[in-house]
Amino acid sequence: MRYSEMFLPTEREVPSDAEVISHQLMLRAGMIRKLSAGVYCYLPLGYRVIRKVEQIIREEMNRAGAQEVFLPMVQPAELWQESGRWEHYGKELLRFRDRHDREYCLGPTHEEVITDLVRHELKTYRQLPKNLYQIQTKFRDEIRPRFGVMRSREFGMKDAYSFDADEEGAEISYSKMFEAYKRIFSRCGLKFRPVEADSGTIGGSFSHEFMVMADSGEDGLVFCSSCSYAANLEKAEVHPPEKENLDAVEELPLTEVHTPDIRTIEEVCAFLGVSPREIVKTMIFSADGKPVAVLVRGDEEVNEIKVRNYLGCDELELAMDDMIEAITGAPRGFAGAVGLRGRIIADNTLINMRNVVMGANKEDYHLRNANPGRDFQIEAFADLKIARETDDCPRCGKALSFARGIEVGHVFKLGTKYSKAMEAVFLDRNGKEQTMIMGCYGIGTGRTVAACIEQNNDENGIVWPMPIAPFHVIITPVNMNDSALAEAAERLYGSFAAGGFEVLLDDRDERAGVKFKDADLIGIPIRVTIGPKKLAEGKVEIRLRDTGEVTAVPLEEVENYIRKLISGKMNLENSGSAGSE
Amino acid sequence: MRYSEMFLPTEREVPSDAEVISHQLMLRAGMIRKLSAGVYCYLPLGYRVIRKVEQIIREEMNRAGAQEVFLPMVQPAELWQESGRWEHYGKELLRFRDRHDREYCLGPTHEEVITDLVRHELKTYRQLPKNLYQIQTKFRDEIRPRFGVMRSREFGMKDAYSFDADEEGAEISYSKMFEAYKRIFSRCGLKFRPVEADSGTIGGSFSHEFMVMADSGEDGLVFCSSCSYAANLEKAEVHPPEKENLDAVEELPLTEVHTPDIRTIEEVCAFLGVSPREIVKTMIFSADGKPVAVLVRGDEEVNEIKVRNYLGCDELELAMDDMIEAITGAPRGFAGAVGLRGRIIADNTLINMRNVVMGANKEDYHLRNANPGRDFQIEAFADLKIARETDDCPRCGKALSFARGIEVGHVFKLGTKYSKAMEAVFLDRNGKEQTMIMGCYGIGTGRTVAACIEQNNDENGIVWPMPIAPFHVIITPVNMNDSALAEAAERLYGSFAAGGFEVLLDDRDERAGVKFKDADLIGIPIRVTIGPKKLAEGKVEIRLRDTGEVTAVPLEEVENYIRKLISGKMNLENSGSAGSE
Repeated sequence: MRYSEMFLPTEREVPSDAEVISHQLMLRAGMIRKLSAGVYCYLPLGYRVIRKVEQIIREEMNRAGAQEVFLPMVQPAELWQESGRWEHYGKELLRFRDRHDREYCLGPTHEEVITDLVRHELKTYRQLPKNLYQIQTKFRDEIRPRFGVMRSREFGMKDAYSFDADEEGAEISYSKMFEAYKRIFSRCGLKFRPVEADSGTIGGSFSHEFMVMADSGEDGLVFCSSCSYAANLEKAEVHPPEKENLDAVEELPLTEVHTPDIRTIEEVCAFLGVSPREIVKTMIFSADGKPVAVLVRGDEEVNEIKVRNYLGCDELELAMDDMIEAITGAPRGFAGAVGLRGRIIADNTLINMRNVVMGANKEDYHLRNANPGRDFQIEAFADLKIARETDDCPRCGKALSFARGIEVGHVFKLGTKYSKAMEAVFLDRNGKEQTMIMGCYGIGTGRTVAACIEQNNDENGIVWPMPIAPFHVIITPVNMNDSALAEAAERLYGSFAAGGFEVLLDDRDERAGVKFKDADLIGIPIRVTIGPKKLAEGKVEIRLRDTGEVTAVPLEEVENYIRKLISGKMNLENSGSAGSE
Repeated sequence: MRYSEMFLPTEREVPSDAEVISHQLMLRAGMIRKLSAGVYCYLPLGYRVIRKVEQIIREEMNRAGAQEVFLPMVQPAELWQESGRWEHYGKELLRFRDRHDREYCLGPTHEEVITDLVRHELKTYRQLPKNLYQIQTKFRDEIRPRFGVMRSREFGMKDAYSFDADEEGAEISYSKMFEAYKRIFSRCGLKFRPVEADSGTIGGSFSHEFMVMADSGEDGLVFCSSCSYAANLEKAEVHPPEKENLDAVEELPLTEVHTPDIRTIEEVCAFLGVSPREIVKTMIFSADGKPVAVLVRGDEEVNEIKVRNYLGCDELELAMDDMIEAITGAPRGFAGAVGLRGRIIADNTLINMRNVVMGANKEDYHLRNANPGRDFQIEAFADLKIARETDDCPRCGKALSFARGIEVGHVFKLGTKYSKAMEAVFLDRNGKEQTMIMGCYGIGTGRTVAACIEQNNDENGIVWPMPIAPFHVIITPVNMNDSALAEAAERLYGSFAAGGFEVLLDDRDERAGVKFKDADLIGIPIRVTIGPKKLAEGKVEIRLRDTGEVTAVPLEEVENYIRKLISGKMNLENSGSAGSE
């Protein structure tokens, strides 16, 4: 491709409305343009990268035995009513009526459609397993779309759905996808980690997220450097402490203390001269509309996902003032377990609590020396807090590491959630009707590209990994008016293109500095600079975008030199390896 | 791919709700399934064909210098209001509101979006020309979707848009697309014709449709066997007859005839003893709400497209009863030119009319011997009728041929329709602001596949042309329980796959007859049959789907034999040729 002909509008200025670096660089490098809130156009440079990611996904899905289909974006309401999601999905599901006043939605995902297709066509165990995937546009009407294509409303996704006759089969299907995902992200040249993820309240199911490691990532993740444990922060388990023998610790008398204008943990500590570890926070939640008090130590935070899963409820939110007042008899900010009317559960960290400070359920008062058993009853202890640096690995007990990442893929064992609701059944070996076991597996294509940029950039722009770079090579003659340079550039361009390299020739009549800046911004891995001095020696300069390393290479060796560079960076070799960092 | 593992549900029965053969066969061959009215799922076999068509399109668009982008499906109302189409598009434009109550539509086409993108990024003549294309899902809320993916609501389309600095440039862009389309449909293995098409009332613009020839086609087309003239029936021009000297033909007295219960041309002919050529039909139209009478000879039909273009109106429809009565003074069915209040235009065929029969503008009466000039005034003669077998080629005067076809592609010189409305301007060489000249170019991908089936089928199923066949070869061991046959099949399967053929191994435990029927139904060009008798001689049978020709080929020669068969049928050679029939 000739730069002069390409639709590649680069920008020097950092766009004011782009917060994260990938969004800024995708705009500046002319990869995307915004059409509407959370809705983007891909320009040629951006779409080249998307297509490369799609191709890698396609190859690995096919290798894993999945078959490509293409399902509609416009989906009838009836199917969503059957699965129950028409009611539950909320406003992210964009709904509309067609000219005949029939209700439809824009597909945010395709469980309903694929289950409908499969239940009509697969009837016996002999036709199972099946894994069907597509690469397709989805729409989720996010309330606050942001970060460019990282969290957009319209977005590209590979989604796959597996159907198995039994649990063992479903686990094999799951692990095939897990391995395929490792190969996909390795082949894309990404540093990533699969982590255990929350799978909600579906019994017996499990789930992993594939995280691209990036400090700018929205998601926290936790991993053990000693064993293979890794999970996202929401899911990360915390081992309960040893149960101590508290017989020797005297239960001191419960005391009410007047604590005017004292609300935060820090204020309570300072006022009462205690450490946060001696305080118990009482958080009141509304679980499917009913109040539940959750106790955690003053230095810990409640993990709402864990609470929701423990309670098995659909909706969990912090209680409103009226609910708090109803069960504590006091305004927000003074809740405590003593005298509280309702269920109380506590985080494992509190199993050895004695003589603790907590709210008094009375405005401007706290209690000292509250003790479970004597002063209040705890229904159960469970793992209800967010993991943090002071916690140990739940598997091996060694230190945990914390990092940030961007979720680019998700594998999920669905079980029979959809197949049961929609009656996707088959006849087993004995002629008995059984419900299919499903899995679903997603990769955000635009998100993968954005995450790649978050992980691979410097102050000058994007630094593409070779496998998904929009071009392998950019040829930069420093002056197009110098006919010797221009001719050498054209010759190399012709031979590179004939040799199968993806090459961009910067044939613009621009200053060398402008060309270098654009080449860095759009992040092409290899730049071939053609300048008068080196050319007089029969050489060109080859500069690597990632290391900045420059090598002068004789003209006759350039093609071979670059061929080796490219194949060395294509990650095809290590695509079979474990695939994480 | 192994047939036993593939999601390929074939059906013996002709589906009752499928009218056309391509729809029937796509359902029966397990290529598509209906999700909702005009909304289809592509199954693996169907999507393989779609992807092949897309790949050919992509290669030829890139070769022609077009650049691939990917534009949103969800489009903001504002852009459509700017172009004026929000008002004019009607109910086919599916409109909805997002959660913030902003108005959007599902893109039925992308002129607005691409023009918006380009006007923000292209500022000078140096950045022109540009041609941007995408392959993407569209939605048109057709009132009566039918014929499967041939006329569906959600459908795949390649759409390209060119932007030029001047008319000459726009014509070059147009002709590049014209040539690219010829190559695309040739490479797909289709028999097709580009025909002149109506381009509406946009001055100075032109348009061609690419028609796949098929007797079942919805569109009529006209072509000259002597010269290169070809047009769709709507557009097909008719040469005016020679102006005769009518001095010798006496104008007979105008006579009113009572014609009770006589309405059709046939009835008038029989009653009055005249031929249809002696009768003039007076058709009353409402053109943008105003009445216009169009006269055509009794044996001809009015071409409404020609009338609309002649009048330069936006909306043309047959007048309602009240309008007819207002200008004729009589109920529907008795209109005539004599005494009619309003504009009268006439088809060229009537330039030599004298002493004709027409309605009397009076219930149950006709006139004999009506004559223009004496009895009524004609504003103008023009080409306003539908071409038919008795007409000659408008270019060379030789006989015209008529055929039916399916429109699979359309190239259209838009001119400044959108760029003017949306102010897509640039600075020319002299620093003067100019409006870009646009073209748009579409190919329906699903429609191309369906049209291909309409053109290539027999009583047993689909007969794929090699270039877009879902598989090149199917290997059919007649009995999977015969281990010698099964092993030979597996060996061939392995060597074919390694050799780069796309091969389907029918490893199902089914009777040979069932396998043969399915192979024919899904239309794989080459079937390799492995049976005990021939295998004992070290041979297999190769059967061609199109001709039914069977050849016994020694095992060691099979791979080479098939390689030659495939490459001979790939249409790569003739992809450079003129490309029509």
